[in-house]
Amino acid sequence: MWTRWMHRALALAALADGSTSPNPLVGAVVLDASGQLVGEGFHARAGQPHAEVGALAQAGAAARGGTLVVTLEPCCHHGRTPPCSEAVIRAGLARVVIALEDPDPRVAGGGIAQLRDAGVEVITGVLRALAIEQNRAFLHRVQTGQPWGVLKWAMGVDGRTALANGASQWISGPPARAWVHQLRSQMDAVIVGGGTVRADDPLLTSRGRRQPEPLRVVLTRSLDLPAQAQLWDTSIAPTLVAHGPDRQDQALPDGAERVLLSPCNPTELMRALAQRGCNRVLWECGPELAALALRQGCIQEVAAVIAPKLMGGNPARTPLGHLGFTAMDQVLSAAASGVQALGDDWLIQLRLDG
Amino acid sequence: MWTRWMHRALALAALADGSTSPNPLVGAVVLDASGQLVGEGFHARAGQPHAEVGALAQAGAAARGGTLVVTLEPCCHHGRTPPCSEAVIRAGLARVVIALEDPDPRVAGGGIAQLRDAGVEVITGVLRALAIEQNRAFLHRVQTGQPWGVLKWAMGVDGRTALANGASQWISGPPARAWVHQLRSQMDAVIVGGGTVRADDPLLTSRGRRQPEPLRVVLTRSLDLPAQAQLWDTSIAPTLVAHGPDRQDQALPDGAERVLLSPCNPTELMRALAQRGCNRVLWECGPELAALALRQGCIQEVAAVIAPKLMGGNPARTPLGHLGFTAMDQVLSAAASGVQALGDDWLIQLRLDG
Repeated sequence: MWTRWMHRALALAALADGSTSPNPLVGAVVLDASGQLVGEGFHARAGQPHAEVGALAQAGAAARGGTLVVTLEPCCHHGRTPPCSEAVIRAGLARVVIALEDPDPRVAGGGIAQLRDAGVEVITGVLRALAIEQNRAFLHRVQTGQPWGVLKWAMGVDGRTALANGASQWISGPPARAWVHQLRSQMDAVIVGGGTVRADDPLLTSRGRRQPEPLRVVLTRSLDLPAQAQLWDTSIAPTLVAHGPDRQDQALPDGAERVLLSPCNPTELMRALAQRGCNRVLWECGPELAALALRQGCIQEVAAVIAPKLMGGNPARTPLGHLGFTAMDQVLSAAASGVQALGDDWLIQLRLDG
Repeated sequence: MWTRWMHRALALAALADGSTSPNPLVGAVVLDASGQLVGEGFHARAGQPHAEVGALAQAGAAARGGTLVVTLEPCCHHGRTPPCSEAVIRAGLARVVIALEDPDPRVAGGGIAQLRDAGVEVITGVLRALAIEQNRAFLHRVQTGQPWGVLKWAMGVDGRTALANGASQWISGPPARAWVHQLRSQMDAVIVGGGTVRADDPLLTSRGRRQPEPLRVVLTRSLDLPAQAQLWDTSIAPTLVAHGPDRQDQALPDGAERVLLSPCNPTELMRALAQRGCNRVLWECGPELAALALRQGCIQEVAAVIAPKLMGGNPARTPLGHLGFTAMDQVLSAAASGVQALGDDWLIQLRLDG
């Protein structure tokens, strides 16, 4: 009975995908006492009204005796906006239908308890699996203290990500490159290592698809970075240089912010980015840093763009450095995966186990 | 008007795919004077009747005044069987519809000329592109003196074909491995290098899907081969060891046949296999031999099985050795390509340019 409206609420929530960090995606619909749709809302951005508030405002007096269908448990704490549980009670709703309990320790069932205490009927778990999938980045960050990591690379069918001399522009075609810009627009940060800055001088933006652009991050133990690079033009997008304690006196190009990691590794970078409110980050780094991020559990999804090309061999670059496996039953395998065409190229996506 | 029957003739021809070498695939239908189907035939195997002969035998007297629809120009030479052009004329057909002229220098329009000289109407080029595609291996062998080469490998999404210690069983799942057995059943020969024999001790058969099994070929400059190997059991399938002139005094395990190549390289092997009547061969070799075969133009198609796994890095094996490219516009790119699922794995197939 409620799944139809929960699908609608999930679709509303998805409108802000990539824009709500550190908050979750939330969508809500309000039905009046006769079951007619009278209000819709979604959470657009941190600091802006929660989904329930927008939907209730639209519904007005028609909400009285009605039903709120919402993808996440209404909050019960004073954050940048007042608690939604109170707004729901004040609106006189008879019933609240929830997909997923909020794992935020400041909520964690408290919103549901407040509603029930006030005599509101609460139904939970409607389309729960879809709601978990939609908010997997937020949930992962709340549960682990680290953003959800996506590792992306482009390669020929023979598994090469550059020629022996480093040439790699362009392996994939315009549709695949546009897809990568779209992918970046869903990210709070895009991460490379110093080697990628030196070799490719990347821009790393969504080409305007996201405003503000995702934070561009360089993880570099050595701080051996070129004086001139597209990343230093921070009028386009912010840039953060993450380095270790032995380099803290070394100067950086103007514009770039810096963060000290101790030790300087992917896990510490993930903690630092989570503290800055990043729910989801994209790794576009070289093979050694990618392998290290995988080994440290910083990668939850892989997006491999495969071009119908043969690039050839040693010593050309490959996607991943050594992972230390000695038997085929140890290798990282996908819990779920899929393929789609991007122009002449293909995109294979893996969701990693565990 | 004739395309419907030519599709039927092409479907008949395809029934023998992989079994007719060194001959082409040919299918034929006979229609009587009123256009009714009265005979069907296909060429099953070298030494057995040509497609036209079977179809005409089935049609009997009903062929008189009728039409033969055949995928390849009828032969006009005495081979292991008498010329089909004469049989067609003798049957009293009014018309012959042909998809493709036979490029065999012993035919090459001669069959068509004989028919026209005898007063038979000849229509050519019906579904010609499909006929070329169906017989691409035969046509390539006739035109170049070398079999059509297919290069196959299995790898993780990160482009690795083995772990650093050489472990590779199994990268792909049972459906993909069954597909490889099926692929071998369409091949006249399956080629590996000595390194693959030493590392994997492969069986290289179609698991009974082809009778006889394809010829198993080891291309080895060094003749450094293990004394015990599955390839030496030639009761299952024949095995040919191809080596260079400096090893001709070296003994081989019992059972294996040998061929001397001078020089010992992929091109010379292709010439030797073409002379043995191979139209189509499968390369299942390691990266260095694969790269050499590519560089020498011995590969026309690539079949890459991609498993949803991350295997990790240097020094793990990759599909292809060095191809010598220094700019992205030099790399081998596909004229046509496609992807399909094989269980949890994917199959990407490339047809190479030129």
